[in-house]
Amino acid sequence: ETKDNFYVLNTTSVVDYIMKHSSLASRLGGIESNWKVVEVGDGNLNFVYIIEGPCGSFVLKQSVPYVRCVGESWQLNSDRSYFEAIALKKQGTLCPQHVPDLYHFDRHMSIIIMQYLEPPHIILRKGLIKGIIYPCLGDHMSEYMAKTLFYTSLLAISTTTHRSAVAEFCGNVELCRLTEQVIFTEPYMEATNNRWTAPQLDEDVKALRNDKVLKLEVAELKAMFCERSQALIHGDLHSGSVMATVSSTKVIDPEFAFYGPIGFDVGAFLGNLLLAYFSQDGHADKQNDRQGYKRWILATIEETWSKFTQKFLSLWTENWESSGDAYPAGIYRSPTERTLAQEHYMNGILQDTLGFASAKMIRRIVGIAHVEDFEAISNPDLRAGCERRALNAAKKLMKARKSVSSIKEAFELISSELY
Amino acid sequence: ETKDNFYVLNTTSVVDYIMKHSSLASRLGGIESNWKVVEVGDGNLNFVYIIEGPCGSFVLKQSVPYVRCVGESWQLNSDRSYFEAIALKKQGTLCPQHVPDLYHFDRHMSIIIMQYLEPPHIILRKGLIKGIIYPCLGDHMSEYMAKTLFYTSLLAISTTTHRSAVAEFCGNVELCRLTEQVIFTEPYMEATNNRWTAPQLDEDVKALRNDKVLKLEVAELKAMFCERSQALIHGDLHSGSVMATVSSTKVIDPEFAFYGPIGFDVGAFLGNLLLAYFSQDGHADKQNDRQGYKRWILATIEETWSKFTQKFLSLWTENWESSGDAYPAGIYRSPTERTLAQEHYMNGILQDTLGFASAKMIRRIVGIAHVEDFEAISNPDLRAGCERRALNAAKKLMKARKSVSSIKEAFELISSELY
Ligand SMILES: Nc1ncnc2c1ncn2[C@@H]1O[C@H](COP(=O)(O)OP(=O)(O)O)[C@@H](O)[C@H]1O
Ligand SMILES: Nc1ncnc2c1ncn2[C@@H]1O[C@H](COP(=O)(O)OP(=O)(O)O)[C@@H](O)[C@H]1O
Ligand SMILES: [Mg+2]
Ligand SMILES: [Mg+2]
Ligand SMILES: [Mg+2]
Ligand SMILES: [Mg+2]
Ligand SMILES: [Mg+2]
Repeated sequence: ETKDNFYVLNTTSVVDYIMKHSSLASRLGGIESNWKVVEVGDGNLNFVYIIEGPCGSFVLKQSVPYVRCVGESWQLNSDRSYFEAIALKKQGTLCPQHVPDLYHFDRHMSIIIMQYLEPPHIILRKGLIKGIIYPCLGDHMSEYMAKTLFYTSLLAISTTTHRSAVAEFCGNVELCRLTEQVIFTEPYMEATNNRWTAPQLDEDVKALRNDKVLKLEVAELKAMFCERSQALIHGDLHSGSVMATVSSTKVIDPEFAFYGPIGFDVGAFLGNLLLAYFSQDGHADKQNDRQGYKRWILATIEETWSKFTQKFLSLWTENWESSGDAYPAGIYRSPTERTLAQEHYMNGILQDTLGFASAKMIRRIVGIAHVEDFEAISNPDLRAGCERRALNAAKKLMKARKSVSSIKEAFELISSELY
Repeated sequence: ETKDNFYVLNTTSVVDYIMKHSSLASRLGGIESNWKVVEVGDGNLNFVYIIEGPCGSFVLKQSVPYVRCVGESWQLNSDRSYFEAIALKKQGTLCPQHVPDLYHFDRHMSIIIMQYLEPPHIILRKGLIKGIIYPCLGDHMSEYMAKTLFYTSLLAISTTTHRSAVAEFCGNVELCRLTEQVIFTEPYMEATNNRWTAPQLDEDVKALRNDKVLKLEVAELKAMFCERSQALIHGDLHSGSVMATVSSTKVIDPEFAFYGPIGFDVGAFLGNLLLAYFSQDGHADKQNDRQGYKRWILATIEETWSKFTQKFLSLWTENWESSGDAYPAGIYRSPTERTLAQEHYMNGILQDTLGFASAKMIRRIVGIAHVEDFEAISNPDLRAGCERRALNAAKKLMKARKSVSSIKEAFELISSELY
């Protein structure tokens, strides 16, 4: 059901489109023959163009009414572009340091135009595969998550604001359903989309599908994803949605945004760091055994969580008197009570985070969409070994998450896979 | 912000209104001078008229843009009438035996016209105070709850249907906020609305407000109420929203309906049965010591829960193959797995039920709106004794609910208050 007058852009019509919007054209400067247009989309769903002119540059992202990497046979409402735009705007207001600026949005054409994150920005996942150390990553990502999640939760807003925002983002149901399908459903059953390193992981996959206890946990996590509107989450916060340099970190691509569980975002990020960790043995070579890098990844996971906690709780403490509807200042009065409430709350987020991190890890090994971290390991036995350790770690974490109360404990739980 | 052309009806204009709607007039039959109109609203919010003609009768309920029992100083959006109408319709489709028929809805005038539940139907709360035994109550209420809650949950519907319904009922935010205020907020802090049997309960109230552990639980329950869209719940399922005879049970007044936690409905009903139980000693006299009646109430609580579980799980089992999105048949394949999943699910509902039941009990003793069960006990010392036992039972249940896995265990937990 393509909309009237909607058309899929190409490198030529992109230029025509820009010429029709003078503010965009003047941002680039010069005349159109000076503009350089490159399609760079490497994601699964959409088209992305980098456009550079003599005076400026930007990125144009267009959603099409189907899944790009599959084709028109897999229809997908291009309204995701609207949700990406309103999420980008909100997140950009809450945390401008770590969100590209939004310049232009055209709902009808599903076009977003935003700040071009210039080189040396690269997709974090690629940096992790290369073994690049990002000294600010934990600090920046914890900042992004703390601000975007705190300020859209009932710790900061009224239930009036919350219910109206929840209702609006209910419209992003198609992308939520995609998540439900590929993260919480298909990996645990026979489905033609699934694939894995075969035959090496055949038995592991069979065991996964027969793991009754694990599947109870998956159902609980799925219910939480579908039913719990805790904050405006990014919804797809893996290392492919982060662009970074050693000193800059930007979060892109919030098209899956909706009101969901906070742990889904934190878990996506930490789970993808764990995937990066487990893939390192596959990238080791004579020059670099990656052992130091592995330690840096684990340290970054700990740092991200601990700084996330710190920053989130600071925001909460600072804003308590003028706070949202969740913990009225008149009920939670003394510092002791407030600390107790905060510990309780963060403990819940940690447990959710570990659960969702695990779900994200599992699906990247046995489901439809794999990650380059593992795919880039060409030796299938080596790859399968890495994947198996990740899978086993994820299973343990998912099952034991409710008895874990710190990242250290989580690492201890999976120490036989980690070390 | 009263709407144009909206006006508050009175016994005269009700007749004019009906005359303007020929299907309503013909339902009554005869001419308007034969019609009998009585205002019977005893609720807190709205006006209710019983209208009888020579051939038929109905009830007309009108919402006004303020809280009836307070007056125009407490404004309240009269859109609640719309949510009541759509909930009545949905619940009536799912469980016609226990829901009055909806004849007419006028959104602009906030008027609902429905089946008149004739005498000997009375409000259940009044029957419980009188000591009337309702032999079908547990069976009927479990039927109502199982059907209305199962069929609107993700066990039965797709996430597409669910998110669009959730979005719609987000519009009922004002009534949700009323619940948040009077159930989850004010009872636990100083608030001018609060009242209690004083001075008898002064120390109990102080202890409640200083109970750090209890207040953590309250925050968790409030968050669940605000964030968790598990099913279309009635939202106000106390014994004043049930009209009954010994053989008929009808649930009225779903104006608080929204997508919320299933345990909120089940807990409202069971919590109000517990309030009825704890009030019985205040109604005992020489003719009737109420001991047998108290046993019947406890038995009815157990029966309601066990039949609710049975019926809910039967619906789930029967519908598994064509089920909603929560537990795909392809993942949960064997009977063992399905049973495990069901036990896990119901255990969660039980714990939520006990939590919400407790919250409902507490607020009726120390908050703004009390229940006739206790208010009808004129001796304040006797009343305070009953209330204190109820309060202590509720506090215990709320704190221990996560370690309880059956109603029997719940009763054991509060045995020193019960017996
Ligand atoms: N603002 C930007 N600056 C630079 N490159 C970008 C920007 N946005 C996207 N890209 C590039 O385009 C790719 C796809 O963008 P993304 O928003 O993730 O699309 P999709 O939704 O299809 O995954 C990214 O991996 C990145 O390489
Ligand atoms: N369908 C009905 N048949 C008979 N009496 C009714 C009916 N609906 C409401 N009533 C009477 O009106 C009272 C108030 O109705 P209710 O819907 O509970 O209003 P409110 O929302 O103000 O609480 C009930 O307690 C009951 O006595
Ligand atoms: Mg992407
Ligand atoms: Mg910025
Ligand atoms: Mg994307
Ligand atoms: Mg009522
Ligand atoms: Mg009512």
